[in-house]
Amino acid sequence: MQIAPRILKGFRDALPQQEIVRRDAMSSLERTFSAHGLVPIDTPALEYTDVLLGKGGGETDKQVYSFEDHGKREVSLRFDLTVPFARYMAMHVNEVGLPFKRYHMAKVWRGENTQKGRYREFYQCDFDIVGIDTAAADFEILLLIYDALDGLGLKDFTLHISHRGIFNDYLKILGITEHSLEILRSVDKLGKIGREKTFEQLCQIVRSKEAEQILTFILSGGSDMRSSLERIAALLGERTEHLERLQQIADYLAESQLPAKVLFNPAITRGLDYYTGIVYETFLDQMPDIGSVCSGGRYNNLASLYTKENLPGVGASIGIDRLLAALEDPRMGGTEESQIPWADVLILCLDETLTGFNTRTAAYLRKEGFRVEQYHEKKKISQQFKYAQRRSIPFAVIAGEEERAAGTVNIKHLSSRQELQGADLAEAAEFIRERSQ
Amino acid sequence: MQIAPRILKGFRDALPQQEIVRRDAMSSLERTFSAHGLVPIDTPALEYTDVLLGKGGGETDKQVYSFEDHGKREVSLRFDLTVPFARYMAMHVNEVGLPFKRYHMAKVWRGENTQKGRYREFYQCDFDIVGIDTAAADFEILLLIYDALDGLGLKDFTLHISHRGIFNDYLKILGITEHSLEILRSVDKLGKIGREKTFEQLCQIVRSKEAEQILTFILSGGSDMRSSLERIAALLGERTEHLERLQQIADYLAESQLPAKVLFNPAITRGLDYYTGIVYETFLDQMPDIGSVCSGGRYNNLASLYTKENLPGVGASIGIDRLLAALEDPRMGGTEESQIPWADVLILCLDETLTGFNTRTAAYLRKEGFRVEQYHEKKKISQQFKYAQRRSIPFAVIAGEEERAAGTVNIKHLSSRQELQGADLAEAAEFIRERSQ
Repeated sequence: MQIAPRILKGFRDALPQQEIVRRDAMSSLERTFSAHGLVPIDTPALEYTDVLLGKGGGETDKQVYSFEDHGKREVSLRFDLTVPFARYMAMHVNEVGLPFKRYHMAKVWRGENTQKGRYREFYQCDFDIVGIDTAAADFEILLLIYDALDGLGLKDFTLHISHRGIFNDYLKILGITEHSLEILRSVDKLGKIGREKTFEQLCQIVRSKEAEQILTFILSGGSDMRSSLERIAALLGERTEHLERLQQIADYLAESQLPAKVLFNPAITRGLDYYTGIVYETFLDQMPDIGSVCSGGRYNNLASLYTKENLPGVGASIGIDRLLAALEDPRMGGTEESQIPWADVLILCLDETLTGFNTRTAAYLRKEGFRVEQYHEKKKISQQFKYAQRRSIPFAVIAGEEERAAGTVNIKHLSSRQELQGADLAEAAEFIRERSQ
Repeated sequence: MQIAPRILKGFRDALPQQEIVRRDAMSSLERTFSAHGLVPIDTPALEYTDVLLGKGGGETDKQVYSFEDHGKREVSLRFDLTVPFARYMAMHVNEVGLPFKRYHMAKVWRGENTQKGRYREFYQCDFDIVGIDTAAADFEILLLIYDALDGLGLKDFTLHISHRGIFNDYLKILGITEHSLEILRSVDKLGKIGREKTFEQLCQIVRSKEAEQILTFILSGGSDMRSSLERIAALLGERTEHLERLQQIADYLAESQLPAKVLFNPAITRGLDYYTGIVYETFLDQMPDIGSVCSGGRYNNLASLYTKENLPGVGASIGIDRLLAALEDPRMGGTEESQIPWADVLILCLDETLTGFNTRTAAYLRKEGFRVEQYHEKKKISQQFKYAQRRSIPFAVIAGEEERAAGTVNIKHLSSRQELQGADLAEAAEFIRERSQ
């Protein structure tokens, strides 16, 4: 009996050209994180349901894949990397020590509605500094966001930062803290609905004078951090503790000479309960419509569900899937999937008996840093060239008995049809290097 | 209400020192695979149960995590990477084209008995060449096994190869093919129970003369492939097609000058049904007791469960967890977990106001290729040194106001207590480089 091969709705196979790009991106992120002294951790995909959801089984969240295992345990697939990290810190804080700087890139699963183009299996990438509450740590996350995106080859992006406490300070001065939740919700939509509609919405919550004041406040930001903070200080009537914290970060930024575009943007609010200090969002200048590609902030207490130990922290999360989609967009000057090379060089098979000789050629070129594939069957040359072209492999090595006897190869650059005949291996490597990028 | 943080039996959290080693190993394997022109793929963790098990739900294999999802679909977590790959090829063969060379490193899940030290979540690493049946492809897998283990820093290991067809040829000559299954099972234990006990077991299946002949046959191997194959040819009375195939591989091996130890070992049988041609096993010379760390072979048809298309292939699988455990063993000269450095340099925090200056130092050293962590809180120097030591970070940078003014740093090698004061950044980088390994 044959079974129809198929995959579940909301799940994806990764074709090689997709997986090559994803792995390259993740390797780049890993390099950035470890260059900053962050260390990787891992947690199980499957955990006790009550540990992940903070309650027993039964009426669990519909988005979570939960079931009973062979041992009658209620288990669930992780739906994010934050909850498992909180559980991890509660269990391992003495082993890892504080402060603890970690990153975690892994798959998570959510039984979401797939109609909105959402997937039920996707990667998350989180990085955090836990056990410390200083402006220097807040600043490190800013650095990490910049270096991570810069490392991925992104050039035009802007970091937006704000501080949850500053906005709360201002609402307190206006005497309207009881409406803060609704106000934050309206303000959060500013980028989408514009100033006028935000004003209208605010007027339904507070008096129009206050609505005007709120708008003035959230529009007081700018890329000149110092003068933006001055404007905010004037509105607040003093330099509050939270303002001072942002000023410190602005000072570090100036002295570090980081070539990042950083914007103080009081309209950034990010979620409502979790974050308690600085908040970050990151927008691609060419693609603001896809929203923030890296967001985060400072939180008071990571693992209060599991431990009495107070674990303040600061961190951010990169939307890898969204970012990879953006990198492919023509606006970002990306490479189309079909143009991703599967290797640098294909060594053609003129005859199978040449395999040992070709293997030596391959080994030489690999040592020179090239990805070298050997074709392993005697087929028509035209068919082997087609194989290379289909995989966007830019170079081909062709060598027969004559070349074996002479210890040389012929090498061809497929797109330009340039060819070097009777080259020794060093010349072949040079030929490739000259024509690569 | 607080919840006791805990993880499921058979599952593990990875501490940083473990995850650093695992990621380094996996990056090394990735480099080897792509250097050979293999491409990565990925498949979902969750699949339809009937697709994975070849049958409907209900009485599914107890080792497989199966359940009903929100949409009443019978789903299972993948228990290996072979079945999903077969399903993948049935669906995507036209997109990826043939021959297709892929690798896949990912987690799999099995609800196994944990008492034998087995885990319910672990990594697999598979690599295959599909759609081609040549000695050159068989040889490439041998190369890949060698390069993969060599790349991981292993020096003393031996590749054992054989061919399922040769053993069958010999049993045919002896006229005892009807017992081949039992004979293979006994022969497979030779390494564990020794020649004498294997002989006894064989005598319960066939006559003692035949038992003797079988033993002579399976002990006819050796590292000199040519003369081993001659001995086998003499026993077979001819050079069969299967012998010729191994001879070809031996020829490629000789001409390629691969510095691998390859042993023709007719006792290698590997499984009973799946493999139809060459088979591979790989043993660490210092730790033969842990068994083969990389095994595989040639199969007739990968995806017959899902498609009528015939997909012959050859591949192997690396037992990553077993290998990582071996690499830590003192017999292998491995580094203990507690000695794995979390970074190369720690920049101490003499005062938080120095953060911007320290960030410039860090950025410089990162460009020089070092992993540089900044300490982000003004604490006692002794406490910061302790932080570095606990994480096996070998170097510390100490810089205060004076150094900021002069644009210099002090750098210290913690284990030797050597120190360079008032160094410019180029000197500091040189100081680190000279003392690293």
